[in-house]
Amino acid sequence: MKERLRGVFAPITTPFEADGKVAYDALKSNMEKYAASPIHGYLALGSNGENKSLTNEEKEKVLKIIVDYKAPQQIVMAGCIFESTIETIDFAKRAEQMGADFITMLPPSYFKKQMTDAVLIKYFTDIADAVSIPCLVYNAPQFSGGITLSPALIKEVSKHPNIVGMKDSSTGNIDKYLMAAEESFAVMAGSANFFFNALLMGATGGVISLANAFPDITVALYKATYQLDIQKAIALNKKILRANKAVSGKGGVAAVKAAMDLAGFYGGDPRLPLLPMDKEDIEEMKKTLIKEGIL
Amino acid sequence: MKERLRGVFAPITTPFEADGKVAYDALKSNMEKYAASPIHGYLALGSNGENKSLTNEEKEKVLKIIVDYKAPQQIVMAGCIFESTIETIDFAKRAEQMGADFITMLPPSYFKKQMTDAVLIKYFTDIADAVSIPCLVYNAPQFSGGITLSPALIKEVSKHPNIVGMKDSSTGNIDKYLMAAEESFAVMAGSANFFFNALLMGATGGVISLANAFPDITVALYKATYQLDIQKAIALNKKILRANKAVSGKGGVAAVKAAMDLAGFYGGDPRLPLLPMDKEDIEEMKKTLIKEGIL
Amino acid sequence: MKERLRGVFAPITTPFEADGKVAYDALKSNMEKYAASPIHGYLALGSNGENKSLTNEEKEKVLKIIVDYKAPQQIVMAGCIFESTIETIDFAKRAEQMGADFITMLPPSYFKKQMTDAVLIKYFTDIADAVSIPCLVYNAPQFSGGITLSPALIKEVSKHPNIVGMKDSSTGNIDKYLMAAEESFAVMAGSANFFFNALLMGATGGVISLANAFPDITVALYKATYQLDIQKAIALNKKILRANKAVSGKGGVAAVKAAMDLAGFYGGDPRLPLLPMDKEDIEEMKKTLIKEGIL
Amino acid sequence: MKERLRGVFAPITTPFEADGKVAYDALKSNMEKYAASPIHGYLALGSNGENKSLTNEEKEKVLKIIVDYKAPQQIVMAGCIFESTIETIDFAKRAEQMGADFITMLPPSYFKKQMTDAVLIKYFTDIADAVSIPCLVYNAPQFSGGITLSPALIKEVSKHPNIVGMKDSSTGNIDKYLMAAEESFAVMAGSANFFFNALLMGATGGVISLANAFPDITVALYKATYQLDIQKAIALNKKILRANKAVSGKGGVAAVKAAMDLAGFYGGDPRLPLLPMDKEDIEEMKKTLIKEGIL
Repeated sequence: MKERLRGVFAPITTPFEADGKVAYDALKSNMEKYAASPIHGYLALGSNGENKSLTNEEKEKVLKIIVDYKAPQQIVMAGCIFESTIETIDFAKRAEQMGADFITMLPPSYFKKQMTDAVLIKYFTDIADAVSIPCLVYNAPQFSGGITLSPALIKEVSKHPNIVGMKDSSTGNIDKYLMAAEESFAVMAGSANFFFNALLMGATGGVISLANAFPDITVALYKATYQLDIQKAIALNKKILRANKAVSGKGGVAAVKAAMDLAGFYGGDPRLPLLPMDKEDIEEMKKTLIKEGIL
Repeated sequence: MKERLRGVFAPITTPFEADGKVAYDALKSNMEKYAASPIHGYLALGSNGENKSLTNEEKEKVLKIIVDYKAPQQIVMAGCIFESTIETIDFAKRAEQMGADFITMLPPSYFKKQMTDAVLIKYFTDIADAVSIPCLVYNAPQFSGGITLSPALIKEVSKHPNIVGMKDSSTGNIDKYLMAAEESFAVMAGSANFFFNALLMGATGGVISLANAFPDITVALYKATYQLDIQKAIALNKKILRANKAVSGKGGVAAVKAAMDLAGFYGGDPRLPLLPMDKEDIEEMKKTLIKEGIL
Repeated sequence: MKERLRGVFAPITTPFEADGKVAYDALKSNMEKYAASPIHGYLALGSNGENKSLTNEEKEKVLKIIVDYKAPQQIVMAGCIFESTIETIDFAKRAEQMGADFITMLPPSYFKKQMTDAVLIKYFTDIADAVSIPCLVYNAPQFSGGITLSPALIKEVSKHPNIVGMKDSSTGNIDKYLMAAEESFAVMAGSANFFFNALLMGATGGVISLANAFPDITVALYKATYQLDIQKAIALNKKILRANKAVSGKGGVAAVKAAMDLAGFYGGDPRLPLLPMDKEDIEEMKKTLIKEGIL
Repeated sequence: MKERLRGVFAPITTPFEADGKVAYDALKSNMEKYAASPIHGYLALGSNGENKSLTNEEKEKVLKIIVDYKAPQQIVMAGCIFESTIETIDFAKRAEQMGADFITMLPPSYFKKQMTDAVLIKYFTDIADAVSIPCLVYNAPQFSGGITLSPALIKEVSKHPNIVGMKDSSTGNIDKYLMAAEESFAVMAGSANFFFNALLMGATGGVISLANAFPDITVALYKATYQLDIQKAIALNKKILRANKAVSGKGGVAAVKAAMDLAGFYGGDPRLPLLPMDKEDIEEMKKTLIKEGIL
């Protein structure tokens, strides 16, 4: 299973019309380009997909397009982010039916104080028991009210036959998770900031928002690192760190979308309350991307 | 408008069947008792109502029951908690159509880093512009990823003709909000821990989970304080602080529901991933409530 | 012992010359005024005294002046703030020899991760065992790296015959400490923001930086509350909350010192790296204090 | 200057007698071993040296021994950790006189709320202006009340001719500092957890507590990485990550000292309130170290 989680995964953004409706045709057009790119797979309905700003109906339509338009060898992970077990299971089953290869599960956090390791282990287990496709846990304290998954929790869930890996979007010091988990458990980097480092420590791959705008260079870094062509990898990593700082370090999803627009994809504005990136900030970002030879 | 926010509001819990389905009949039965009690109003679909664990369809059914079963003079506030402006407006309009008197708005927090004062002011304003019923903002860092509303934000939104108050569930030092806001802006306490203190500082009332199980003593404290019968109020407050510590201080919604069961309402279990309170903890809680003469 | 902790205590500031040296004569002059005021006592070498910015030699000289110049009935608490048990005990013994009535102990926090309840209980106990004068613990997460003393810790230390009380400078929800502690244990408020509320909940008094500049009105609030003259207390509290927001809410020690200058005491500049308050901010503060009739 | 900050620096621990006094002879004996080891230098009086638990007199004696016993080519950085500018400068000058090569400066944090970038830049600048030896800033939120140095601050101080580098003990994502700082500015890793990664991103070296017990393997990792012998480096890094998790991940200074005892150095107990490591935890640590072939 670990082999299917190797490489660069793009956390697909959801394009919107000016009136806030989902721009499904724009998504199709983006997917046609990604399908022709060297990226290994997708995270559908993740944080960059503005999962929590979509209705369930919109989520299903988005997922269907991604599954339909991907290249055959590309893998699809579907984000299932809800506060109740029952809703997560309902959507996870829908994702399975629609052809997702994996689902990813973020810890509920509204009742953060009650989310002990025991409660979260039961949550992840209940979902993994309810679907047939393999499941990943998603560690992203910035999006889950400050909840950081503990190595003890990872140790426990990694024993479940249907919980096969995790995506870490916290600090990238993934060694604590690698040491805690079963050998078969895959750890993926959730940010370009530590993608290279994580690969050297044993990550199988990464879910990298920069790949939404620049799939080629992101895959090039993955390949150079995987082949231990270390001088090339270090040089590519420097470019990518500077580019990533100029993009998602600056403005989150809005910046990722602005970079996509610059790179010839349909980025567009995020959904309110998120605001688009300032024009000036976009100009500055553009300069950095050109200077690094990425744009 | 401030007059309509005076008194004790119960943040109604959502009862569930053993299989996790909403127990609508149990809710009706609870509401019949509340309608006969001295409480001044309700928060429907708040945190204690497990708002984020319900589907939109379930939320509408719950709200309808509360509106239908309340006593005529009782007020209903409806919680509207979504991450996108568009979904919040959609639901707020439905709540208005269904007869809610007020809506309450929690700041989106999934993209916490982007939730600047400017973004949140636009969010609250967009919603308040879209509905006719008056709106309250809800300050609850424990439920919104650590976001605490700033006095500067409150100053700004309090100028909007349709944003008429706030509920503060943070620390209860509401003076900073009272000083910042327009005179007409109502501040309500969101916890029994500082309800009495907040009233003395100028709060109009409180949304008090203890009122779900013990409406009478909670209203008695409100009345004694409002009438400056200070020795009586101090004595009642001591009882209530001890009771509240034994209830929601211990286990959040699960404990509020356990206390409701003890008091003759239908509490039941919370929805997964939340777990019911341990039997031992319930026994200890019961002892405290009996000792304080509340049960 | 609780009786000796009733009333308003001023957390004496340390005046400095322009070159950063301690202005001992200015301190004497301030103390002569405080000795003639109605305040009940002093916290020497607390946070407002810039304890951590003084050498031990300076601390001793400051403490000696406070003990020598106070009125006979006034009480002196001496802040003992060190990271190691050995240094805290050394200084606590010196404070005892010099005539302090109480010492106050802040939890060490440099190695915050190691500061479990067990470690802190041993720390407080070791010190309380080593001196003959009674000891208070000081709960101030803003000054101790985020460490908030737990009710369980307070329960435990309150059993020690020589740990007689605490000063709470966190949120003022002191009921959780009152409920946990032995009956004989005194809880004092550490901020004007919740002094009034804390008194109504059972605090014996407060250590109030506003008393450094305005001892009379602060004592007036204490007396009105103590006598349950509640309408007078509420009115005084409103003035004090507004004044306190304009003073320490704005700029910490620098603002307290600026207010002292306005009120005829020697405030002066704080020690570097702390900067004095901006002239504009002082003007704004002055306006508020005049408007409230305090200046 | 950057060349002098290359390699592995050991953050020397302070040994104590059973009664809590500093064991100067034990320190001399440890230093004799370090002088014969391949490590490139020392951090005297850092966090592992329990700086904040020592009197100034003790600090000077410790620093003198380290300077006197080091090998000629080895570099000494001296930790200067105080809350006031005046005390930091006084000690920094003493360190210079005593022969330290660099001083390191931690941001004051007692008055954390006031420690804006402007205040901290002035603080670092005032000290760097007052001494002739070059200065490093020390980024360690876990020890400075949560203060994380901003890239904007690093950008500014890196322009000062006498502020030549930094030690980062936060998350190891040092690229944000490297991108912000002047080319001449050295960035050092403050933990074995990200030493390898930081070197690949451009760090000059590291201050690594594991080197106190195991200087050889730590230097071996540095050399393999510096020479881009990447397969060897990855293998060594895996061992070191596991060892470091078993040591400082477990119990901070107490664990580092226990590991030193196992490795034939004088570790001993930390100073109270820090407690020594449990015997059971030491046994477990020992097993891991033996398993990894480090002990």
